[in-house]
Amino acid sequence: MSEQVGDSQDAYWMEYALDLARYGIGTTSPNPPVGAVIVKHGRMLGEGYHRKAGELHAERRAIANAIERQNEGELSGATIYVTLEPCSSHGRTPPCVDAIIEHGIKRVVYGSKDPDPRHRGRADWILRNRGIEVLAGVEKEACDRLIRPWAHSVLTQRPWVVAKVASTLDGHMTRSGSRWLSCPEGLRYAHQLRLESDAILVGGGTVRCDNPALTIRMPIHSIPEYKQQPWRIVLTYDKQKLPADSTLFTDEYAARTLVYEDVEDLEYMLHELYCKYGIVQLMLECGGKLLRKFLEQGLVNEMVHSLCPIIGGGGDDMVPGDFLPQELLFQRESIEPAGMDIILRGVLMPLR
Amino acid sequence: MSEQVGDSQDAYWMEYALDLARYGIGTTSPNPPVGAVIVKHGRMLGEGYHRKAGELHAERRAIANAIERQNEGELSGATIYVTLEPCSSHGRTPPCVDAIIEHGIKRVVYGSKDPDPRHRGRADWILRNRGIEVLAGVEKEACDRLIRPWAHSVLTQRPWVVAKVASTLDGHMTRSGSRWLSCPEGLRYAHQLRLESDAILVGGGTVRCDNPALTIRMPIHSIPEYKQQPWRIVLTYDKQKLPADSTLFTDEYAARTLVYEDVEDLEYMLHELYCKYGIVQLMLECGGKLLRKFLEQGLVNEMVHSLCPIIGGGGDDMVPGDFLPQELLFQRESIEPAGMDIILRGVLMPLR
Repeated sequence: MSEQVGDSQDAYWMEYALDLARYGIGTTSPNPPVGAVIVKHGRMLGEGYHRKAGELHAERRAIANAIERQNEGELSGATIYVTLEPCSSHGRTPPCVDAIIEHGIKRVVYGSKDPDPRHRGRADWILRNRGIEVLAGVEKEACDRLIRPWAHSVLTQRPWVVAKVASTLDGHMTRSGSRWLSCPEGLRYAHQLRLESDAILVGGGTVRCDNPALTIRMPIHSIPEYKQQPWRIVLTYDKQKLPADSTLFTDEYAARTLVYEDVEDLEYMLHELYCKYGIVQLMLECGGKLLRKFLEQGLVNEMVHSLCPIIGGGGDDMVPGDFLPQELLFQRESIEPAGMDIILRGVLMPLR
Repeated sequence: MSEQVGDSQDAYWMEYALDLARYGIGTTSPNPPVGAVIVKHGRMLGEGYHRKAGELHAERRAIANAIERQNEGELSGATIYVTLEPCSSHGRTPPCVDAIIEHGIKRVVYGSKDPDPRHRGRADWILRNRGIEVLAGVEKEACDRLIRPWAHSVLTQRPWVVAKVASTLDGHMTRSGSRWLSCPEGLRYAHQLRLESDAILVGGGTVRCDNPALTIRMPIHSIPEYKQQPWRIVLTYDKQKLPADSTLFTDEYAARTLVYEDVEDLEYMLHELYCKYGIVQLMLECGGKLLRKFLEQGLVNEMVHSLCPIIGGGGDDMVPGDFLPQELLFQRESIEPAGMDIILRGVLMPLR
């Protein structure tokens, strides 16, 4: 457990900002989801969250919202709560610290520090130099968790990779008679994961056998109008063997399908997906053979394992072949029943 | 959900009786665990549970307890709460209905009906004929659940079979380097299951490879002094290949080890275990090959699946071989974290 920073008022408003930030999950890449709320004398003056790269940051949206609510005059002397250290450099939008200073905000409370060592702590320094009180680390654990995929991508220049796996209780990915593994509630959860992701990766075999669309169709929450369908990445040994009439090449999102042929260096491919396409969270929906390659190279960060309450014997192995050279530990973060299925979610790390 | 029978007082005292009954789980076979409490004007006069076949039934122990507490005179006009319909026939002890009548108890409230069609409803009839008020079905679901293994054995003349399985997240029963699968908390749970069972079955391979003791050593609850170590059943193709110095043949419980050679008819073997040894709950701790045989023949009633948070690839399959002729549905009853492990418990049934 992390030490508590700030008082219960601070915690309350930071949780409020976190709730706002979560609306942005899945739509902000390559930026992080961020939420902000401006408060004075216990009253909320304005609120905002970052929706999409190129649009206003959360802090500026909260200020704009206060102005809209005709609270502009009150901003002077107010406190702003932000889930992430405000930006201090010119990106596609001007730095948020400037807006905070301009509007006379007197106190800045934030959760996570900027993970990028080039920016980390710089907003603190600028704001304090202007006589603004700064408190960092309020609800740090939840704020850090919210930006985990983004922080990973900033530091490694690769997406956060989430393997989505469905298996029977006896560890098989297929059933006799090619029946479905997931129950309707489990399927909705899978579509929710797609909504949170920027791209979905499958192997050529999955395209040939299942002809999937890999689009978001029935998530648990509604799809924001500014959410684009995820990139669809196909990894194959031979492009020629992918049927030209596959849904991925013919539907209205065909321009969002990327094919990688005969990839030797998965890590480099991931680097390219991040740098060229801004993919911060990549979801694997591939079969066991390809999953094994990602696991062997230590490239899976998180696993979402949907257990289907069936014992069927036979079928494809989840991780086919011999023992992995290095066992992986699944550090459980949640156990959630979804209809008949049980969904386990956690991070993967090499077992020492 | 079952319909509610009785008022909140009835429910309260039946839950009290259920708590008493649970002390008997694992020690009463071939009898069921039963609890009883005698109440008058909202005051508890006496309580008891069945401990061991041949000893007093719960009703007679509750009456004896009331007498010990010098409440004998008060029994007249009291209510007795029993988790199971009182017995009405002479077994190793005289029928409980006689004791109830003798002591002037005026109201009998019970949970489960006797599953044996030869006895079912007979106590009701006898008691009502003597002017005693009878209310059946209070907390029926919990009472039925408590005697589920026993009711199954009465009706099928076979033990209730619980398969205890530990696997990695990718469905293997062994890890590289022969490391353990279960964490300490998971192991304690397994010993608790042994405490609840009358016998434990393994294959010859397990005896040769692991030389297990199959005794109860560190369960979650303390071991009652009258609990015997479980029968240990070994199924093998060739007795000669079992090492004579195995723990099962040489420890102080060697007389509780039974070897079955080259069994064709598992169902008949189970029948014999019930009729000859009074085994009501049999726990399978065997490897995948033998487990598969029990599954194929539909002889596994309940499964306790301990998921070890490891992805290792390789290792023995939980259900080796091809698809089962008939898929089995695991009807989940509980999900319980035990340290790092996750323990899933539920009943198995053919999937239609």
